[in-house]
Amino acid sequence: MKSLKKTIYEIIEEAEPGNRPSEIFDVFLITLIALNVVALIVGTVEEIHRISPGAFYLLEVISVGIFTVEFSLRVWTCTENPKYGHPLKGRLQYLVSPLALIDLLAVLPVYLVFFVNLRGLDLRFLRVVRLLARIVRLSRYFSSLSTLGKVVYTKRGELAAVVSVLFLLLVMTSSLMFFAEHQAQPEEFASIPRAMWWSIITLTTVGYGDVFPVTAAGRVLAGIIAIVGIGLFALPAGILGSGYMEELAKVAKEPVRCPHCGEVIDEG
Amino acid sequence: MKSLKKTIYEIIEEAEPGNRPSEIFDVFLITLIALNVVALIVGTVEEIHRISPGAFYLLEVISVGIFTVEFSLRVWTCTENPKYGHPLKGRLQYLVSPLALIDLLAVLPVYLVFFVNLRGLDLRFLRVVRLLARIVRLSRYFSSLSTLGKVVYTKRGELAAVVSVLFLLLVMTSSLMFFAEHQAQPEEFASIPRAMWWSIITLTTVGYGDVFPVTAAGRVLAGIIAIVGIGLFALPAGILGSGYMEELAKVAKEPVRCPHCGEVIDEG
Amino acid sequence: MKSLKKTIYEIIEEAEPGNRPSEIFDVFLITLIALNVVALIVGTVEEIHRISPGAFYLLEVISVGIFTVEFSLRVWTCTENPKYGHPLKGRLQYLVSPLALIDLLAVLPVYLVFFVNLRGLDLRFLRVVRLLARIVRLSRYFSSLSTLGKVVYTKRGELAAVVSVLFLLLVMTSSLMFFAEHQAQPEEFASIPRAMWWSIITLTTVGYGDVFPVTAAGRVLAGIIAIVGIGLFALPAGILGSGYMEELAKVAKEPVRCPHCGEVIDEG
Amino acid sequence: MKSLKKTIYEIIEEAEPGNRPSEIFDVFLITLIALNVVALIVGTVEEIHRISPGAFYLLEVISVGIFTVEFSLRVWTCTENPKYGHPLKGRLQYLVSPLALIDLLAVLPVYLVFFVNLRGLDLRFLRVVRLLARIVRLSRYFSSLSTLGKVVYTKRGELAAVVSVLFLLLVMTSSLMFFAEHQAQPEEFASIPRAMWWSIITLTTVGYGDVFPVTAAGRVLAGIIAIVGIGLFALPAGILGSGYMEELAKVAKEPVRCPHCGEVIDEG
Repeated sequence: MKSLKKTIYEIIEEAEPGNRPSEIFDVFLITLIALNVVALIVGTVEEIHRISPGAFYLLEVISVGIFTVEFSLRVWTCTENPKYGHPLKGRLQYLVSPLALIDLLAVLPVYLVFFVNLRGLDLRFLRVVRLLARIVRLSRYFSSLSTLGKVVYTKRGELAAVVSVLFLLLVMTSSLMFFAEHQAQPEEFASIPRAMWWSIITLTTVGYGDVFPVTAAGRVLAGIIAIVGIGLFALPAGILGSGYMEELAKVAKEPVRCPHCGEVIDEG
Repeated sequence: MKSLKKTIYEIIEEAEPGNRPSEIFDVFLITLIALNVVALIVGTVEEIHRISPGAFYLLEVISVGIFTVEFSLRVWTCTENPKYGHPLKGRLQYLVSPLALIDLLAVLPVYLVFFVNLRGLDLRFLRVVRLLARIVRLSRYFSSLSTLGKVVYTKRGELAAVVSVLFLLLVMTSSLMFFAEHQAQPEEFASIPRAMWWSIITLTTVGYGDVFPVTAAGRVLAGIIAIVGIGLFALPAGILGSGYMEELAKVAKEPVRCPHCGEVIDEG
Repeated sequence: MKSLKKTIYEIIEEAEPGNRPSEIFDVFLITLIALNVVALIVGTVEEIHRISPGAFYLLEVISVGIFTVEFSLRVWTCTENPKYGHPLKGRLQYLVSPLALIDLLAVLPVYLVFFVNLRGLDLRFLRVVRLLARIVRLSRYFSSLSTLGKVVYTKRGELAAVVSVLFLLLVMTSSLMFFAEHQAQPEEFASIPRAMWWSIITLTTVGYGDVFPVTAAGRVLAGIIAIVGIGLFALPAGILGSGYMEELAKVAKEPVRCPHCGEVIDEG
Repeated sequence: MKSLKKTIYEIIEEAEPGNRPSEIFDVFLITLIALNVVALIVGTVEEIHRISPGAFYLLEVISVGIFTVEFSLRVWTCTENPKYGHPLKGRLQYLVSPLALIDLLAVLPVYLVFFVNLRGLDLRFLRVVRLLARIVRLSRYFSSLSTLGKVVYTKRGELAAVVSVLFLLLVMTSSLMFFAEHQAQPEEFASIPRAMWWSIITLTTVGYGDVFPVTAAGRVLAGIIAIVGIGLFALPAGILGSGYMEELAKVAKEPVRCPHCGEVIDEG
């Protein structure tokens, strides 16, 4: 007979097909996290929060409770995983794994606010950590995100190369524009780092319109930078896009066989 | 000899090549719908509407009359289609088909306004429904739209995956920017849903300039988000674009033959 | 011996390689037209025009003189071209050819201003015609423009299809946004055609910021429209881009032969 | 035994694998230049510069000292390179090589400011030169930039062709918009060159919102220009992008063999 620890481990781990209790647990947890994220987002809208601050508070308390129980169970049962087999060392290794850290960050801020004297620490920071940790928890269940992660990993060399080029371009264009516009707009082009804000917003073609050149020299320069630079800032999008298509194509590919004679035509 | 119902059915159905009366009916109907859409659009321009409100009214009355007759004929003759063969059940099935519903929505709002007491219901809503239904009716005759529809259908898996990633990205960037900018701009970044407006307008590179970060932290964050996120928001465009090209290429393709036995493998 | 007419025809026609006088004439004419276009553009800058209005006037008079002589010679000698062989009918046919019409439009506005009573006609219109005609004359010597023209011609079917879809999308999104924002912004969203300005500027991601939704409903709608629509508005760019690449690849393609055994490996 | 000159030459030249002193020198120089660029950029931020102007001054003095020594050593030892073998003529040839000029421009402005009477010369100009020269020096160590340089070189024909088309488009759209908007906005559309600013900012989809059409004619024109022109302004990005992908693919490629005789055709 399976031990209680093993049974619980199998339930709270990712569901194997056919394991009904584990599937139900997964659906319940996803729903709870999703509800939580929605509540934390919607709760920032003053008008909605005001309707029933108690409901938001209750959901938070219940969620933190469940997350705490779940986290404790995970730490208790993690020794069932051969990777974290040792009762103490294994559990410590599990605690510093990215998955466990995210789980911890999703609840810890709440306890810090309740039980620790936090004078001097920004409460807002804890709230961001809590919200982001829960969004990351939610994102684990999006398989499309792991596809994207794979693409970024496969193309990391190209992306790093392109990003380094973009960084050089950013430094160069910002320096040029700083010298061209600083005198005319001492506020908007106060320094080269400030001019970088212009560069990023222009080269990504966002163009808010909060900073733009007003001198003739600055405009000629900006025009040339825009035409040249936009092509370069579009490179990461191109790399990501083609990588994503390749990744999607890989899934579908299998060796193609002639349906008439059975020989392999395309290795795929 | 063909019955009157069958003759009318063949005329109002999509024209088979060579069926002159049906072709003439099609051209007449397309012209009428197009004229209608143009009138409804142009009629919102105060200066133009003022010139001759009567003309707009007359066109509307005539159009609704013709659309009503046409709709009645379609309901009457739909039993000629084996799919809706049964006199009552068939006609009811036809009435709830998307095609018939759109036809109905193109005329019903007008009758509602005329004959029903609509106190409490927004008249503007009925006008949108009427206009949109007629645009959809018009769009049926654009074959390029059905090609696009096919592309969206073929790529629905990829598109859904990408859109879910974009949604997560949106939630994450909006949360970060809310915490970075809320204090400096309590109005523009009043809540996370409000910050989502910033995220969408920035990541699609529209950049109206109604909301943008003003703090140093917010700008650094926004710069990183812009460079990273724009590549991801360009993915749906890339998927749609490559899907569209494939769809167009399919038309031109020839059958592929196995190089070993010479038989046709892919009809192209 | 060649007649004078034939000699002049060969000089003013596009230079065949080795025909020195014709080559010199071409270089002279391109320089003159380019100088002219530059002068017409730079002449609109008040500060520059003020320096020496006489110089601009003189260049114009000389240019028009030369263009008139050139045009007369072209009409006189065009009968050397078998296409326009007939002394009268051929010349009339030449006169209504696009090339001759552009040449005519590059000088005619000047004569109209000098000799005809133009009260009631907008002088600005004549100036646009003159400038545009000369830019078009200049563009004839840009071979890259003819490549692009070929691409547009080859892809005209796809482009027309996509443009019709964009048009439908424009009508639909403008109607929706008009109904969503008209009450809150009766000026910016005064009518559906006015809302189309918003649609175009948003869907092309230009985003000036002169018109943008302010209501919650309008923003949700605009966000969805932006994410969906931008992918569609990027389609013409994709079609043009891939067509251009194909066209450039065509020029370079020749059958590839193995340098060792000489057999054809790739038909190109 | 190696001469001192040869030893120094080998150290300050790009490191061959295994040459430890040369590798150490490279790392030291890259760090110094990077530190320098960062200091020059960060030093433009008033608040940071004010903290310790002396530190910035000291770094500059030390850097210029080291760069001067390094440059002198390079000029002294360059004769070890067979290309610049002649003691005098070789050194002069080295001095006018792009590499040496950039090295010179990275230090010369500082000496000019110190020792030469520069009344009438803009000091800001010297600062830009110095900063840009050092950024260029830094960029030499980014291999991804040389890949990009190779792409631009390979595609120079296509890029030049596209840029010439864009230039014509710019001239044409600016002329049209000048005539359409000049009367309504005599300031923003003061001249055709001013209208070019609008054209560039619109066609690159930056759309700051500092200049936009306000007349109905101008808006219709701008809408058409936006839809048509954006596709063309995206061409350089497409050419660069596909060129970059090809260049990256080349690295991974294996030698291609003729299927008939088996010999290598393309080294890949």
